[in-house]
Amino acid sequence: MDVITFGESMVLFNPDAKGPLRYIHTFSKALAGAESNVAIALARLEHNVGWFSKLGDDEFGRYIECFIRGEGVDISRVIKDVTKSTGLLFKERFAHVNPNVYYYRKNSAASYLSTDDIDYEYIKSAKILHVTGITPALSESAKETVIKVVDYAKENNVIVSFDPNIRLKLWSIEEAKPVILELCRKADILFPGIDEAEMLLGISEPKEIIEAFHEMGPKMVVLKLGKEGCRVSDKEEEYFVNGYTVKTMEDSVGAGDGFAAGFLSGLLRDKSLKECGEYANGVGAMATLVKGDVEGLPTYDQLLTFIDKKEYVDR
Amino acid sequence: MDVITFGESMVLFNPDAKGPLRYIHTFSKALAGAESNVAIALARLEHNVGWFSKLGDDEFGRYIECFIRGEGVDISRVIKDVTKSTGLLFKERFAHVNPNVYYYRKNSAASYLSTDDIDYEYIKSAKILHVTGITPALSESAKETVIKVVDYAKENNVIVSFDPNIRLKLWSIEEAKPVILELCRKADILFPGIDEAEMLLGISEPKEIIEAFHEMGPKMVVLKLGKEGCRVSDKEEEYFVNGYTVKTMEDSVGAGDGFAAGFLSGLLRDKSLKECGEYANGVGAMATLVKGDVEGLPTYDQLLTFIDKKEYVDR
Amino acid sequence: MDVITFGESMVLFNPDAKGPLRYIHTFSKALAGAESNVAIALARLEHNVGWFSKLGDDEFGRYIECFIRGEGVDISRVIKDVTKSTGLLFKERFAHVNPNVYYYRKNSAASYLSTDDIDYEYIKSAKILHVTGITPALSESAKETVIKVVDYAKENNVIVSFDPNIRLKLWSIEEAKPVILELCRKADILFPGIDEAEMLLGISEPKEIIEAFHEMGPKMVVLKLGKEGCRVSDKEEEYFVNGYTVKTMEDSVGAGDGFAAGFLSGLLRDKSLKECGEYANGVGAMATLVKGDVEGLPTYDQLLTFIDKKEYVDR
Amino acid sequence: MDVITFGESMVLFNPDAKGPLRYIHTFSKALAGAESNVAIALARLEHNVGWFSKLGDDEFGRYIECFIRGEGVDISRVIKDVTKSTGLLFKERFAHVNPNVYYYRKNSAASYLSTDDIDYEYIKSAKILHVTGITPALSESAKETVIKVVDYAKENNVIVSFDPNIRLKLWSIEEAKPVILELCRKADILFPGIDEAEMLLGISEPKEIIEAFHEMGPKMVVLKLGKEGCRVSDKEEEYFVNGYTVKTMEDSVGAGDGFAAGFLSGLLRDKSLKECGEYANGVGAMATLVKGDVEGLPTYDQLLTFIDKKEYVDR
Amino acid sequence: MDVITFGESMVLFNPDAKGPLRYIHTFSKALAGAESNVAIALARLEHNVGWFSKLGDDEFGRYIECFIRGEGVDISRVIKDVTKSTGLLFKERFAHVNPNVYYYRKNSAASYLSTDDIDYEYIKSAKILHVTGITPALSESAKETVIKVVDYAKENNVIVSFDPNIRLKLWSIEEAKPVILELCRKADILFPGIDEAEMLLGISEPKEIIEAFHEMGPKMVVLKLGKEGCRVSDKEEEYFVNGYTVKTMEDSVGAGDGFAAGFLSGLLRDKSLKECGEYANGVGAMATLVKGDVEGLPTYDQLLTFIDKKEYVDR
Amino acid sequence: MDVITFGESMVLFNPDAKGPLRYIHTFSKALAGAESNVAIALARLEHNVGWFSKLGDDEFGRYIECFIRGEGVDISRVIKDVTKSTGLLFKERFAHVNPNVYYYRKNSAASYLSTDDIDYEYIKSAKILHVTGITPALSESAKETVIKVVDYAKENNVIVSFDPNIRLKLWSIEEAKPVILELCRKADILFPGIDEAEMLLGISEPKEIIEAFHEMGPKMVVLKLGKEGCRVSDKEEEYFVNGYTVKTMEDSVGAGDGFAAGFLSGLLRDKSLKECGEYANGVGAMATLVKGDVEGLPTYDQLLTFIDKKEYVDR
Repeated sequence: MDVITFGESMVLFNPDAKGPLRYIHTFSKALAGAESNVAIALARLEHNVGWFSKLGDDEFGRYIECFIRGEGVDISRVIKDVTKSTGLLFKERFAHVNPNVYYYRKNSAASYLSTDDIDYEYIKSAKILHVTGITPALSESAKETVIKVVDYAKENNVIVSFDPNIRLKLWSIEEAKPVILELCRKADILFPGIDEAEMLLGISEPKEIIEAFHEMGPKMVVLKLGKEGCRVSDKEEEYFVNGYTVKTMEDSVGAGDGFAAGFLSGLLRDKSLKECGEYANGVGAMATLVKGDVEGLPTYDQLLTFIDKKEYVDR
Repeated sequence: MDVITFGESMVLFNPDAKGPLRYIHTFSKALAGAESNVAIALARLEHNVGWFSKLGDDEFGRYIECFIRGEGVDISRVIKDVTKSTGLLFKERFAHVNPNVYYYRKNSAASYLSTDDIDYEYIKSAKILHVTGITPALSESAKETVIKVVDYAKENNVIVSFDPNIRLKLWSIEEAKPVILELCRKADILFPGIDEAEMLLGISEPKEIIEAFHEMGPKMVVLKLGKEGCRVSDKEEEYFVNGYTVKTMEDSVGAGDGFAAGFLSGLLRDKSLKECGEYANGVGAMATLVKGDVEGLPTYDQLLTFIDKKEYVDR
Repeated sequence: MDVITFGESMVLFNPDAKGPLRYIHTFSKALAGAESNVAIALARLEHNVGWFSKLGDDEFGRYIECFIRGEGVDISRVIKDVTKSTGLLFKERFAHVNPNVYYYRKNSAASYLSTDDIDYEYIKSAKILHVTGITPALSESAKETVIKVVDYAKENNVIVSFDPNIRLKLWSIEEAKPVILELCRKADILFPGIDEAEMLLGISEPKEIIEAFHEMGPKMVVLKLGKEGCRVSDKEEEYFVNGYTVKTMEDSVGAGDGFAAGFLSGLLRDKSLKECGEYANGVGAMATLVKGDVEGLPTYDQLLTFIDKKEYVDR
Repeated sequence: MDVITFGESMVLFNPDAKGPLRYIHTFSKALAGAESNVAIALARLEHNVGWFSKLGDDEFGRYIECFIRGEGVDISRVIKDVTKSTGLLFKERFAHVNPNVYYYRKNSAASYLSTDDIDYEYIKSAKILHVTGITPALSESAKETVIKVVDYAKENNVIVSFDPNIRLKLWSIEEAKPVILELCRKADILFPGIDEAEMLLGISEPKEIIEAFHEMGPKMVVLKLGKEGCRVSDKEEEYFVNGYTVKTMEDSVGAGDGFAAGFLSGLLRDKSLKECGEYANGVGAMATLVKGDVEGLPTYDQLLTFIDKKEYVDR
Repeated sequence: MDVITFGESMVLFNPDAKGPLRYIHTFSKALAGAESNVAIALARLEHNVGWFSKLGDDEFGRYIECFIRGEGVDISRVIKDVTKSTGLLFKERFAHVNPNVYYYRKNSAASYLSTDDIDYEYIKSAKILHVTGITPALSESAKETVIKVVDYAKENNVIVSFDPNIRLKLWSIEEAKPVILELCRKADILFPGIDEAEMLLGISEPKEIIEAFHEMGPKMVVLKLGKEGCRVSDKEEEYFVNGYTVKTMEDSVGAGDGFAAGFLSGLLRDKSLKECGEYANGVGAMATLVKGDVEGLPTYDQLLTFIDKKEYVDR
Repeated sequence: MDVITFGESMVLFNPDAKGPLRYIHTFSKALAGAESNVAIALARLEHNVGWFSKLGDDEFGRYIECFIRGEGVDISRVIKDVTKSTGLLFKERFAHVNPNVYYYRKNSAASYLSTDDIDYEYIKSAKILHVTGITPALSESAKETVIKVVDYAKENNVIVSFDPNIRLKLWSIEEAKPVILELCRKADILFPGIDEAEMLLGISEPKEIIEAFHEMGPKMVVLKLGKEGCRVSDKEEEYFVNGYTVKTMEDSVGAGDGFAAGFLSGLLRDKSLKECGEYANGVGAMATLVKGDVEGLPTYDQLLTFIDKKEYVDR
């Protein structure tokens, strides 16, 4: 396996029109989940990827399995729990503000993920382990699991990639901060956003942020700067990599996951640090061009064409 | 108020096609809830009805409020809880077997219903209080609430109507039995089904069932016999009332609720026991002629025409 | 009752795509009606409101009843006419011009509204009576009714609020002018638009318009200036109140109705004249942020947040 | 022209689900009109047919024009009236009773059809003129027009075909009877149903009915007997023609129109009286096999195959 | 006939959402075809137009017939081939790039169009014959047919109108160039785009292009300049005609066909060269205001209003 | 691999309503393909299965890959051809006759499948190779490929399973017969239908058919008898296995593929011949209970429950 990742994927119900949900008559089913987004992005970029989570042994869980496996991701380590439900979320979209999200994930199967559910040999088989700051927010046992798997990976020379993904709907910043910082310290590659850096470190100057994170441990810090692009550093080199101007952003959800996948893909292909940053910017930008978390994610050929021509070209 | 009832109403998501949910792309929003079905049925039959529950202070809760109030039911005692979610359910329909139901109601706002949430003066204002065996299955506090409200009603000369509605998806028969039996004993009017009678009493002969329930307390026992019709008894008189032959049953869900409402409507109009049974059979049959829990419920004129001509006539 | 209003509500059929209707295959049902928009807006702002009209005793009439009652408006004085139909309208939408409207309201039940249909005690029970210039355009009897009810309200110290709402599709300016002017003279609160003022008075300078209307009788004149905001005057004070910049206007229909409701809500809460103008601007702006006449109307909390932060926040 | 016919065609809005319309969210546009059904049926059977009516000069009128012309019917004599609307109807479908119909055709453009709107040379050019009893029910002027055109046709040796089509939603039997009987007397070919015969003549025995109608004038009487088939008579010969057993009737609307068209097609092809009856039964049966008034109407090849094999075969 | 045109029309399947087709669940049927677009545009502008092609004798072919005939175009010369299929295409739409097109037209009925399929008397009956560069790209026999019909038209004093319409998905520029140039030489009226001129002639200066084409033969050259407008020349006069600023372009497909139709309509009405250019610009601009190839095409009244007020007004 | 199969899978477009396609506005995308149906059925029954075909390198090909891989089938040997298209089919459904099918698969990528496309080592890795009589009908090269792969399998002790699946839309019985018979002779397990046996052998008595096929070579003959069930024989034993009475058949397409998969699953689990027949009947029956080729296919647990209770139970 090139990359292994795990974390909760949910069935997403999208309203068929904008406005308050009470006036919406029909909803369409889709997939949501930061870690499975990264996995699918990497699979489309031709890497061997594994993803797992704990799912309810119900039709929603089977939908998630079929979708992710269909994208070419190994799901052999997914765990099914007949006594629990698969988590759901509903979006409420408006033209003028960010969508609202209604979660039905409390006590979901995934929140019962525990250290006993892990196939450690499988973890060891990966070049890179990718985790996010969402999983430790789900439950105490999920938090323990993330930390134990990360520790296990480090002990076994698996590179640890960490995207803080601080979700204040799931826990308070007071609860989140020590856990996220602990995982930052354990990570080899870190994907903070500028807002997250401010919440965690209280500083907002990019160069300072990178330095501060390096001091905590990570060898690679990839600071996301939104449309501006990103700043990448491996302690030896440091670059600002210009972003892409996307005139017709359709859906920003999933962009950060695509970004991380783009960077990891560059690493796995032994690209230079700067090229890794360009891949990250490219996949992130392309993800925003199509509605849905994963629908706009590019193949490797499409990514190269996009970076080259700065435009999206489906072959 | 003629009738007051309370209990959980949920947002129901109906798949737009039959078959396993993993292959279904779109879902339509509707309303579900045994007690609100009864309330809507009674409102359409021109009675003053009040219904309440505890709802999340979210768009799904507002949808439930608008729908039920739109039908002419008093919802002034609904309680909103900003910290909880409104319960949901998904149906999975097949041509050859009964629909599956996926509940997302654990820890819903309604399951936190407690004795402090009740406006007892409001309860006292009713001629009839109608409760079901679903509410005590939701949580310990919901169970206490049902019992306390029923006791309060009895003390204040409000007639207590009880539909056992045993849902084995919510609790085991072992858990359910003592609670349901306690409520049977407290009830003035009882609406058992023949299956429920068997589970509760271990007997299956209609006349015996009625006698057994009468001995427990209720003055009126209305035994549902499905398509056959029903057997009604007020200790003094007892009749078998023939059901209606419905060739094109569209949706059996909500039939039992319509049945109870039809009977109560007869009582409120001072009809004879036998006529009350005919109203019950009529509303129950008509509810099955249109898809949805409440869409087929008749106005009083429509009910009389149906009973008269044994056919459904929209004016 | 805080406010009572009456006037025709119709079933609106929205095409599911833009372009000439002959190429449109499916239409979605919704509600339309200036007065019921005002009533719903006020109900959402926590006032006691009553609305009525004459409806066909058919499914379209029942839909209108359920929708408006569902929003918490008192509809107890709605009249049903079994011999007439409920009015309809179809919209035809284009990206580049205002929608076309096809009315099927000639000889609708509402156009037969007459002075005999009115519950005058009900009118007397209101603090404010709100009427529009659409109703007198429907028929001779509807015109008489509006005038008689307005006169009755004035005699009984009910404040009369009037929105001219000149609809040249329903009558010519020659027919409309004398009637609208008569109602302006009778009104206590007047909500003219700048275009309407020009048609009625032949002048276009805001201050002059306000003065001219004051001379005709109304104590309060609220001149709508579109995106610019409004100018409010109660003879003693006069202010220009700045409007809100809405970047993503979704649907301008219903904005004027929300505007009037916002102003009346301020009055009912004893807010200062200027604050009333801010409420009017706020509700009007928020109505345009969601497609549909009433879907975007705010609760009182949402309105205050919007005015405060100048942004829409759903709790 | 082989056949010319005229009469109101309307835009039909079909609910996307069964049940009371107040609960239906979306409607689909289609075409309705007895005379245009006959015209389209004949065009599909390879005859030259003309149809006309008076339409609103609006998008609904243009839709009707495009649809009927698209089917190969000459619409060159359609009249447009900018001051009137095109008529509409809504269906309300139930599983267990016939659909309800809500008309919005009062004062429609077609109801203003008058004797001045007719191109008499065009009428003269036809072999057969087909009219129905719906048109005289629309208005006084429409009634005059039907009678004048029928008289004109007779004077000019155009065969007059008449389908009584008594619609009690449009006029009472008292109003209808004298007019329908007058048209029966003027007709050369008559297509009564057995119910209509009872209403008009007070007799119900097929042979007697045929005799009675012959005595009134018509040379050909084609008595529709529903699923049983029909009885055909040209005074010289008389046959009972067996109907087709259709197991899966999808939509009975339009069957009578297809029946009439089938008979006329036989006549135009100089088939024997009995064969004409078989064509009538065949087209009528095939019309019921597909939802919609005209969607199931057969080509001539399809009709022959159906009659031959007694099954529907699309080539 | 004022204008006769021929060429492949196909059934177009439009995805119901943007994004890669693999994620799209539903598709809507529509019509596509450059020549039928021109024919429909001319019919709506009140000219007598004939269009024909070879279609499969299947439901898709019948759909094309009904649609085009419905628009008032003569389709009497359409040929049906029971052994071939009607061509299809699927669109794949993105927010940020032009749509992809997936053709299923190889070996379609239309690609078998041959010189034997032509009714030469029909061709001779036209004032103008309009052809495009798409037809010769379909097959060898289609190419021969176009050339033979054009030659026949010229010999019989039918004006030949030619729109190069170079489609590099159907043939390479090497294959296309000699054929397109041959047809340019034969044409009386030529509608090149500026890109096409560059591909064919290697020059890009408008005045030079027009001169070069005039030298090849055509008396009229109408050079399309996109949003800028066009340059028209009949050897004697030459004008630049300003285009219309369309803020809300919905769909650019079909604009070129509308443009050609607008010009031909001007010619047929004996308008000045400059006015013909204005008609061309006007119809082209209006076609882009509504989604679909033909839905936005104006009537003559609508065109004049648009040109006059520079805005689209539906009557 | 337990089973490997190959053959064309296509994108299926289902009309959203019954009736002639020309009147259908929307179509839904699905998957079709006899061999992939078998593969999916086996994967759901917990076997390791591989399927491959040649697909266009387009979005329709990617859809097929994602769907089949999502179901847990190995698609690692799928071949992509950038120069060819993925095959399509449209269904046309009627209430009273079998659906029509419109193929767009001529010259599809799959029809170019050739002996060079095969990974023979992969074939060798299977316990069972399953092929159908559809593939040799696609093209000369596809026919050669089937025969070569079958021969290769036999040489390498891979059991050959063959379902004749004679499709007279793809080739005539004259063309089909020798090829199908050759494959019958090569097969180890044969799944003929009673109709196919008649076409191939000219006999219709079950026992005779089985004997005749055994004489040609196959060790196992599984004769499909539709609703009656099947007759299974391995030369030593022979049984008639009763079918299941399915009251609500939703969709018979895919039943034969499920039947074959059920039998092979029994074999792979070392079940007795009779049990294999029961599995075949069970999976075949269950496939018909849900619309779609694969949506109704059971898991192993569901199959056992169905066989046990003779009813479908989703866990």
